[in-house]
Amino acid sequence: MSNAPSPLQPVRPPAADLTGAMFIAGRRVTGTGAETRSLDARTGQPLDPPYRQAGPADVEQACKAAEDAFDTYRDLHPRLRARFLETVAQHLTHLADALVERAHQETGLPKARLAGEVERTTGQLRLFADVLAEGSGYGARIDPAQPHRTPQPRPDIRQQHIPLGPVAVFGASNFPLAFSVLGGDTASALAAGCPVVVKAHDAHLGTGELAAQAIQAAVTEHGLPAGVFSLLVGDGPTLGTRLITDPRIQAVGFTGSRSAGLALVRAAAARPQPIPVYAEMSSVNPVVLLPGALAERAAELADAFTASLTLGAGQFCTNPGLLLAVDGPDLETFLDTASRFIDADAGATMLTPRIAEAYRIETEAVASHPGVRLLARGAQPRSAGPGQAVLMTVHADDFIADPELQREMFGAAALVVRCRDLPQLNDALRHLEGQLTATVHTGPNDTHEAQRLLPLLERRAGRVLFNDWPTGVEVGHAMVHGGPYPATSDPRTTSVGSRALERFLRPVAYQNLPHDLLPAALRDDNPYDIPRRVDGAIHLTS
Amino acid sequence: MSNAPSPLQPVRPPAADLTGAMFIAGRRVTGTGAETRSLDARTGQPLDPPYRQAGPADVEQACKAAEDAFDTYRDLHPRLRARFLETVAQHLTHLADALVERAHQETGLPKARLAGEVERTTGQLRLFADVLAEGSGYGARIDPAQPHRTPQPRPDIRQQHIPLGPVAVFGASNFPLAFSVLGGDTASALAAGCPVVVKAHDAHLGTGELAAQAIQAAVTEHGLPAGVFSLLVGDGPTLGTRLITDPRIQAVGFTGSRSAGLALVRAAAARPQPIPVYAEMSSVNPVVLLPGALAERAAELADAFTASLTLGAGQFCTNPGLLLAVDGPDLETFLDTASRFIDADAGATMLTPRIAEAYRIETEAVASHPGVRLLARGAQPRSAGPGQAVLMTVHADDFIADPELQREMFGAAALVVRCRDLPQLNDALRHLEGQLTATVHTGPNDTHEAQRLLPLLERRAGRVLFNDWPTGVEVGHAMVHGGPYPATSDPRTTSVGSRALERFLRPVAYQNLPHDLLPAALRDDNPYDIPRRVDGAIHLTS
Repeated sequence: MSNAPSPLQPVRPPAADLTGAMFIAGRRVTGTGAETRSLDARTGQPLDPPYRQAGPADVEQACKAAEDAFDTYRDLHPRLRARFLETVAQHLTHLADALVERAHQETGLPKARLAGEVERTTGQLRLFADVLAEGSGYGARIDPAQPHRTPQPRPDIRQQHIPLGPVAVFGASNFPLAFSVLGGDTASALAAGCPVVVKAHDAHLGTGELAAQAIQAAVTEHGLPAGVFSLLVGDGPTLGTRLITDPRIQAVGFTGSRSAGLALVRAAAARPQPIPVYAEMSSVNPVVLLPGALAERAAELADAFTASLTLGAGQFCTNPGLLLAVDGPDLETFLDTASRFIDADAGATMLTPRIAEAYRIETEAVASHPGVRLLARGAQPRSAGPGQAVLMTVHADDFIADPELQREMFGAAALVVRCRDLPQLNDALRHLEGQLTATVHTGPNDTHEAQRLLPLLERRAGRVLFNDWPTGVEVGHAMVHGGPYPATSDPRTTSVGSRALERFLRPVAYQNLPHDLLPAALRDDNPYDIPRRVDGAIHLTS
Repeated sequence: MSNAPSPLQPVRPPAADLTGAMFIAGRRVTGTGAETRSLDARTGQPLDPPYRQAGPADVEQACKAAEDAFDTYRDLHPRLRARFLETVAQHLTHLADALVERAHQETGLPKARLAGEVERTTGQLRLFADVLAEGSGYGARIDPAQPHRTPQPRPDIRQQHIPLGPVAVFGASNFPLAFSVLGGDTASALAAGCPVVVKAHDAHLGTGELAAQAIQAAVTEHGLPAGVFSLLVGDGPTLGTRLITDPRIQAVGFTGSRSAGLALVRAAAARPQPIPVYAEMSSVNPVVLLPGALAERAAELADAFTASLTLGAGQFCTNPGLLLAVDGPDLETFLDTASRFIDADAGATMLTPRIAEAYRIETEAVASHPGVRLLARGAQPRSAGPGQAVLMTVHADDFIADPELQREMFGAAALVVRCRDLPQLNDALRHLEGQLTATVHTGPNDTHEAQRLLPLLERRAGRVLFNDWPTGVEVGHAMVHGGPYPATSDPRTTSVGSRALERFLRPVAYQNLPHDLLPAALRDDNPYDIPRRVDGAIHLTS
């Protein structure tokens, strides 16, 4: 076969230089728009190099190149595409020191956490490489012809998934590696066979440029069409709108605020040809503390809760921002202990001064609600974007009455909902919007109540946890990082884990095709050696 | 296990009586709105019994009952749900004579065709029963805990698909059985575990009531919660909007016109919680006749084409309404032969007088286009809704210049696009909207050209056919009845074939759940005996 995998080539590490350029189809291009810079998260000082925003011609070139690359890239042997992803991962590892250094400067996140994020990002690329090599993503199905069937013969019909086309990716601020230029959306779209055009996040332009070098080097080494990847700089309203309305873009991956996500959803729906948008937007990740859990280990729970809440300055999509429990002495013990932890918290630098300011405004708005009581507030660190931990309580009556109290405060703030009894706790859960996660902590006698809650939690969230905390999202086969609206714009998918590539695929059936013209995944001899459903029965690889 | 399948009970055939009532959660309810009747398709005379449209309280009751039934129904053992679908199929078979008789009266479709449609409808219920019994729809995945992993232990994470919730189904006019009250949308939603509320199609209210008796009898026999199924009567703008905006409805299946489909899509997107709409809307199903095919068998192709075009008065979503070929003597032979067939065509009664009138207006609009030439027109039958076959040609220059010429004419009308050469034919294909199907006819020397066309056709359609005709949609595992916008509102799915049930599911992950609380599909002992992905590797049933 002409496109069978060739031996893996030696990897030439990309240079770790920052030039202030974007990447358009293999070329470094300086934008024609306004100048923009990342800020040092701690000092607020603008960092070198300066970047310039993409002009309309830059977007046009990136999208045209992506479209031109599509048919070649999607036709690549899946094991070659897998090797390409592995090479990208290798390059990222080579760049790890430079990435951690720059990301630390741009985001204020601790270096150890960022080093872990490099691992996570390479791990996620390798997971998709494994899935490609296995081939289940093709969803291959063969219903052979039945020429003698009566009253009508059955034609030969075969089905496979094909990629949707070029994908636009909008990176998140809070994971400068794992959810950004080379993050889960880019990795899963590339794995699916879709060229990617990324809008760089302004908060970590340098980290983005470094990551782009890793992918660009791999594109060149593997001799792929240059349009497989482009990185553009610009703001959401201008560049984002331009990208999403380009007719060649066929799907969108986004992680960020609800307002920005919904703006993309609306823009995509208003196109002459609407396209799917996978926007992961906001979640307060309710945690239920059942009576038995509080009776057994209130102080221990308070310890673990505050650790989860303040991790990374609370800047996680899965941050436990809402707790629900039945009022009583055990809840008081929990709140007293948690308050002591929060009061003693040193605070942390947030990702950007703007995010810190938004967090301050959001927490103040909730704190000023007549039903809300401020329980504890941590220290305010010296920094351009100081994040201060906050713990508040509200009675379930007030919580249920005002949906605004469900709003995410992006940072280390939590609201504890005091319920009269378990029926009211149930009622409060019923009033919740869709969430990424929902958690229950149980004690010895809570099993029956936990079982009653389960169907409700399943319908409210993409992931249900027991006696655990929602921060920390495993990248694996079983993970779901998704959930009902407005946690995401599309509950039928996940943006983390091997299933994420399914977002960028659609099925096509081939009827009565001459064998020579059949896509390789559907030929009788199964040249890709992938699992297929033949005449209804699943066959694993030969 | 408490919910393991019990022996199949004997089936009590439902009575085949028409009462003019709707079905709301197991009760026959007469609507409170305006009176409405189906028409005899041939005479245009109103038929008994009269029906009355649903009022707001009827919609409320049906949706509430669906929501109330949801948790019980979705928790049913998959093999019990499979048996329920098999019982529905048995009841439909018992009612076959009455269904064919009434549907023939209401739609004018030939009895033999309708008898085939009963088979197709029961076959499709049985296909979903098979898929349920096999269990791949659960998409079960288990990533076991790794307590000793460093630097962080891995928690136990398991994933399954759960149903979205109550589904609203809008039946089609042209398949009074296979795409209506008990059609593919209803069958796949029920298979997925979703209660269904159907809006009956006004053109075949009696057929709908009979089909509802089949399902209602099965609901009772299997002791299912009554809200699993309801059938409401009413018009699209009023009842349709009410249904789709009810907060309990979580997804929509629709087959019909583009304008009605897009109205539903807009209404669903404007809800406080937007929901997925699977609308199959319109398609002209381009057929390319390559030069070698025309040189080899122009007359034979014309024969097969006109048979496909005029089948069922052309009232198929997959009707070949657009042909593309290179100008020349072979195309003239094809057109001459096809014109003779069309001229000799006796015509047929269309589904309703309104559909016939819309068809007349649509074909006249195209025929009056300055670039279009009328080649042949069949006879006009004596009937309340006469459908007359029409064959027209247009030059590719004119076709490319005016997107209005791509509009579906729902009926036995086709437009042949004369191309200067193959590059222009390619260009015309590139200008096409998304389609359900795309077909190529090839001769001995066309293989190279066909290969070049394939990537283009894959991107334009949900099903690609070679040397075959698109009418006739196999119900199987490999079928795709779907396609890029505007053929459907969501290209990532199919509305026919076993994959159709995936439309009504979403993944949920369970982290660190006590084994007793795990959903059955995810327990260690695999009580449903279904295929699962464990630690990344696919395991078929034990």
